[in-house]
Amino acid sequence: MRAIRLAVAGLGTVGSETVRLLRSRRESLARRLGARLELAAVCDRRAAAAARRLGLPASVRRLTDPGRLPSLPGIDAVVELLGGLEAPRRLVLASLRRGLGVVTANKRLLAHGWDELREAAARGQARLHFEASVAGGIPILKALELGLAGDRVEAIYGILNGTTNFILTRMSEGMPAAAALRRAQELGLAEKDPALDLSGRDAADKVSVLASLVSGSWLRPDQVRVQGLEGVSLEDTAFARSALGRRVKLLGVARFTGAELRVEAFVSPALVPLEHPLAAVSDEFNAVLVRAASAGDLMFYGKGAGAGPAASAVLGDVLALGRELLTGTAPAAPRPGPALRLADSDCAFYLRLAALDRPGVLSSVTAALGRLGISIATINQPAGWDPRGVPIIITTHPTSPGTFGRALRSILALPAVSRRHTVMRLLP
Amino acid sequence: MRAIRLAVAGLGTVGSETVRLLRSRRESLARRLGARLELAAVCDRRAAAAARRLGLPASVRRLTDPGRLPSLPGIDAVVELLGGLEAPRRLVLASLRRGLGVVTANKRLLAHGWDELREAAARGQARLHFEASVAGGIPILKALELGLAGDRVEAIYGILNGTTNFILTRMSEGMPAAAALRRAQELGLAEKDPALDLSGRDAADKVSVLASLVSGSWLRPDQVRVQGLEGVSLEDTAFARSALGRRVKLLGVARFTGAELRVEAFVSPALVPLEHPLAAVSDEFNAVLVRAASAGDLMFYGKGAGAGPAASAVLGDVLALGRELLTGTAPAAPRPGPALRLADSDCAFYLRLAALDRPGVLSSVTAALGRLGISIATINQPAGWDPRGVPIIITTHPTSPGTFGRALRSILALPAVSRRHTVMRLLP
Repeated sequence: MRAIRLAVAGLGTVGSETVRLLRSRRESLARRLGARLELAAVCDRRAAAAARRLGLPASVRRLTDPGRLPSLPGIDAVVELLGGLEAPRRLVLASLRRGLGVVTANKRLLAHGWDELREAAARGQARLHFEASVAGGIPILKALELGLAGDRVEAIYGILNGTTNFILTRMSEGMPAAAALRRAQELGLAEKDPALDLSGRDAADKVSVLASLVSGSWLRPDQVRVQGLEGVSLEDTAFARSALGRRVKLLGVARFTGAELRVEAFVSPALVPLEHPLAAVSDEFNAVLVRAASAGDLMFYGKGAGAGPAASAVLGDVLALGRELLTGTAPAAPRPGPALRLADSDCAFYLRLAALDRPGVLSSVTAALGRLGISIATINQPAGWDPRGVPIIITTHPTSPGTFGRALRSILALPAVSRRHTVMRLLP
Repeated sequence: MRAIRLAVAGLGTVGSETVRLLRSRRESLARRLGARLELAAVCDRRAAAAARRLGLPASVRRLTDPGRLPSLPGIDAVVELLGGLEAPRRLVLASLRRGLGVVTANKRLLAHGWDELREAAARGQARLHFEASVAGGIPILKALELGLAGDRVEAIYGILNGTTNFILTRMSEGMPAAAALRRAQELGLAEKDPALDLSGRDAADKVSVLASLVSGSWLRPDQVRVQGLEGVSLEDTAFARSALGRRVKLLGVARFTGAELRVEAFVSPALVPLEHPLAAVSDEFNAVLVRAASAGDLMFYGKGAGAGPAASAVLGDVLALGRELLTGTAPAAPRPGPALRLADSDCAFYLRLAALDRPGVLSSVTAALGRLGISIATINQPAGWDPRGVPIIITTHPTSPGTFGRALRSILALPAVSRRHTVMRLLP
């Protein structure tokens, strides 16, 4: 039986679990692949200690410098689970250029280096797999690439960040945001520095990967409009539920229009109808709703983080890569896709303002919206919320984000209106 | 650019939509595959009329006899969408034995002929794809085979029949079952003869396909314990909601234990907690919850029927087959899997009885359960439901299905208890 020889770089929680499963599932993996998966080398700053902890036999090479991995003789593929950005980037690029298959779980690497990774893979005639980079154990990339290969993806709506979804779930039960964040940190569901999660930038990297995969052309993370959780308060989640029959979710969205590859991509807090499948996605779970021209709406749901789910995705990639190596499948031709053009589409908005309790304020606000042709769906002035001003909550009918932004600027310039405000999108 | 030459057999709604999309998406399909997909022949009882209706060029062969398809020169693959069982079976077996790749949407064919199809494919060194046979446009088979290839699937819980899910959704809103069925028929969501749907046998075929795919060994449909919707009334759905905080769903379940390939497989009405992701699956939608050892719980949701979703799955299969034909991927070795052993696992049950309003009846019923060591979780006697007897609703703690069945038989033999009763399972 032929063997595929693997090197695993990075023996943190995901790397250790991957190595453990490669060994404990050895026989079933070999049966499925028709070849043995052989762990030939591991690489970690503390490789010797990690190898001891994992009970690796002496035949497994231990390296501490990932730079040496690509030139190690007899390796077929590299599994990159180092963490960080620069060391993984160097390792993955060098491996691909040398013709080694690569599996990585690194979303930032993909999102920020899509084109150079493709070029390296084309140059080395090598394959790159990255299922674990988005939505953990949910095989969403294979669903988009293989399951929906014959369909046309029109839009993707994802709950792509477990930390913020956990916080929003607790907020919907009445727990303040700061306490919910502390709870997530206690449970190991949030980083010590949660800035990338709360700001929406982590989700934006995943939108970039998803949109690039669907379109075949790189959507850079800086082309994703990003709004995080910062403005969302308990008042918003409670009002959403009681008055609007909706839940607040941080959504990452990519919408594609037509053959010209126009894409609208954003991360934003969004109000989701209670009966919508995304509204039922609670706690640290992730979900991706895919709107396909023929299949209609599909949703993929599961755990977006954790060693087990990530290792599950990594092993699925290892088997996919193994099959390609065994059959000599030619790598996809290095066609850099046509440049994506950014687009906006109309959307209904939620706006919460704080205003002084003066006659005429409400009419100035509504006039600012009316002047730009934005039509109002609901206005509410809940009593007794905020000591610093009267809350005004407006929902609009669908309008262009640009027009809404202009109206918002003129509203916030009104002397009786505070600069503090919250904007969310309404999912239809 | 190389071409893959296809024959499409059956130009009903799914076949027509498949042909339409093969033509309208010609360019994007060719780009993804790196080869042209060429429609070489169609086969239908009214092939000429269908070809005219679809605007097919004269270069596309029209056949009326599917028996002639496998020997048609220059065909690479057959797309079987005939409907029925015997004609598809003959066509698929003959095509595979001749080495032609086959895509089919026929769940009954798969469920009832798994082993002979595998043998035919092995003999012809040919590939068979059948994504559209289960859960329509949801790429669940590719998720199990490819996405979760490196994981270990422990259980599958599916809402696999759109007709019964539509009926249960209407019943949960208070519409009687018969009216809900008529509504489904008016909307084209139910067959004129809905017996296969209502009895659970359609779902059992899909459980058979899913379990056989996961285990690699044929689980025959007659090995699936099947209970349909027949016993479930408006009283049950209302009581489930108000007293138990649960929704009734018709679930198809396969649970796998250990390496010995023990499987428990059943179709049954089940009480699902309101906060469970399967509870939110309404109307004619399908969903499959997969419990994997590493990835945890994953759910796949979408439309389980309709021409668009089925054609989406068929085209995904056509592309997968096309890639295999282009790369010369060897078909999986013809390893008939080890025989599956059937197992039962403990489960909590819901039992609704109708009894005469006599002293001592309740104690006879509870004694019958107690004698077999079945412990009762709740007992309810709602007032004024049924003119023919006092309803008694019991939920048990988990017990073996065999033991529960024995207790049920002794309860139904009590003189004061009617034979009419309803049994459902409780999903934990």
